[in-house]
Amino acid sequence: MRVCRSLAEFQILRKAIPPVKNVGLVPTMGALHRGHLSLMELAKSQCDIVISTIFVNPTQFGPNEDLSKYPRQEIEDIKKLEQSKHVDYLLLPTVEDVYPKGFSTFVNVEGIDEQKEAKSRPGHFRGVTTVVSKLFNMTQPQKAYFGAKDAMQCIVIKKMVRDLNIPIEIVIGQTLREPDGLAMSSRNVYLSEQDRKISTILYKSLSAAEQLWNLGKGSHCEVHTSASNLVQEILKVLSQEPSVLVDYISVGSRADGSELSIVDYHEGAIISLAVKLGTTRLIDNIELLPK
Amino acid sequence: MRVCRSLAEFQILRKAIPPVKNVGLVPTMGALHRGHLSLMELAKSQCDIVISTIFVNPTQFGPNEDLSKYPRQEIEDIKKLEQSKHVDYLLLPTVEDVYPKGFSTFVNVEGIDEQKEAKSRPGHFRGVTTVVSKLFNMTQPQKAYFGAKDAMQCIVIKKMVRDLNIPIEIVIGQTLREPDGLAMSSRNVYLSEQDRKISTILYKSLSAAEQLWNLGKGSHCEVHTSASNLVQEILKVLSQEPSVLVDYISVGSRADGSELSIVDYHEGAIISLAVKLGTTRLIDNIELLPK
Repeated sequence: MRVCRSLAEFQILRKAIPPVKNVGLVPTMGALHRGHLSLMELAKSQCDIVISTIFVNPTQFGPNEDLSKYPRQEIEDIKKLEQSKHVDYLLLPTVEDVYPKGFSTFVNVEGIDEQKEAKSRPGHFRGVTTVVSKLFNMTQPQKAYFGAKDAMQCIVIKKMVRDLNIPIEIVIGQTLREPDGLAMSSRNVYLSEQDRKISTILYKSLSAAEQLWNLGKGSHCEVHTSASNLVQEILKVLSQEPSVLVDYISVGSRADGSELSIVDYHEGAIISLAVKLGTTRLIDNIELLPK
Repeated sequence: MRVCRSLAEFQILRKAIPPVKNVGLVPTMGALHRGHLSLMELAKSQCDIVISTIFVNPTQFGPNEDLSKYPRQEIEDIKKLEQSKHVDYLLLPTVEDVYPKGFSTFVNVEGIDEQKEAKSRPGHFRGVTTVVSKLFNMTQPQKAYFGAKDAMQCIVIKKMVRDLNIPIEIVIGQTLREPDGLAMSSRNVYLSEQDRKISTILYKSLSAAEQLWNLGKGSHCEVHTSASNLVQEILKVLSQEPSVLVDYISVGSRADGSELSIVDYHEGAIISLAVKLGTTRLIDNIELLPK
């Protein structure tokens, strides 16, 4: 694996990759876990060359968010990638490389402000779409890989690609979970031992809503259920752990993430949620598959 | 020349162009004049394959601008391109191709609101950068060609390309003028016979300012001049034609278009102006070259 710490150096290497090669990109913010590695494995199984990037992107963090304390563990990350053998090029650009003096161009998917994750993190997705556009242009892949755990991110990036005719296929890799159900996330390291145990309640609550969904879906007489039924089921489970502070529970369209009040059993939905546990914000989601 | 009226059809043709070929793009809004054709000739001299597009882009017109009456003359345009033999593929996408239902992603160069052309046409450059991004992605050229007449457009597109790491070289072709000095523009057809004569005053005024600039530049004791000196010189000339209503006169940085109050003889500037003549808005500019 070739490790590049400067964009200029990387651009020379990128130009040397023959155009016939199928290139896959796995952009990350580092602090790599098995979820990331599974995306790289998927990329390697579908592409000739896999490029990964590690860049903690300042423009997607709000002023009161965890940019400065976001886990940075470059040396361990590189070791993991070397061992996994799925990645051919690792680009670690500097903030000055990505946002040089005078930078002021943004890519923005408009009209998503009412979606709950977007509302909870104003400006977040604008930062994501901007940096992802830049990484796409820097690396020029045929395919790019993102994890399903960031459900709205996947929807927003797919929409940007469609709207701007970006000639890249977006591939979503499934959420990897710890044995007790917690979705893998770089932010899990923030959790105290106590909160780590409590955190399993997130997936339990989503699974309870899924069970309720499957029950209704199996019935012959019902065609839809109300979003609030599903939300109540989740809240019932989460209430077992009073230290879990709910930021939002969203029942959204699988197509565009827009909030649903009625969920058709033939359409399905994505239930996503964000909670605060201690000082840590955790998100998770589950896809309710249609009939 | 292959003429494509659908994006889907064009995408198949684009994929068939071998990656070793050097592709040039000349995006236009049609109503082609010799200025456009000179860009295509330049493109053909530098590239293996030239793609041109004709698309009157609704998102770059303000609500009170001339979108509906903008000259459309597809058949004449195609004839001109066939005769010139500089273009290999002509894409004429439909509005629905470019902005399908649900479209909502914009590319925006921020921080240019104080520049006079941007201030005069709010939202214009956001429409330009968005459609140009889309055309870049649709056609995937190595080089793209724009005319110097739209001075601020050239600056904004170059900035977008730099900021977003778009792997395309922007080539600016010089403004072509009628024998009497009027800059060629698709909007010139709007002018009455009387106004067509009057319109020559624009280039006369810019040339007068250039003369003044060259005079100062030649002097050994001066290092700079004030922008208002140059503006006064232009106004003096324009005042000979009272039917010419000045929208703005801008003395801007050659690097980023920002307004200058002092112009260094070692830095130069771009003087650009917009006027209303009858119901027609005309723009023109001249580059003041540094010592």
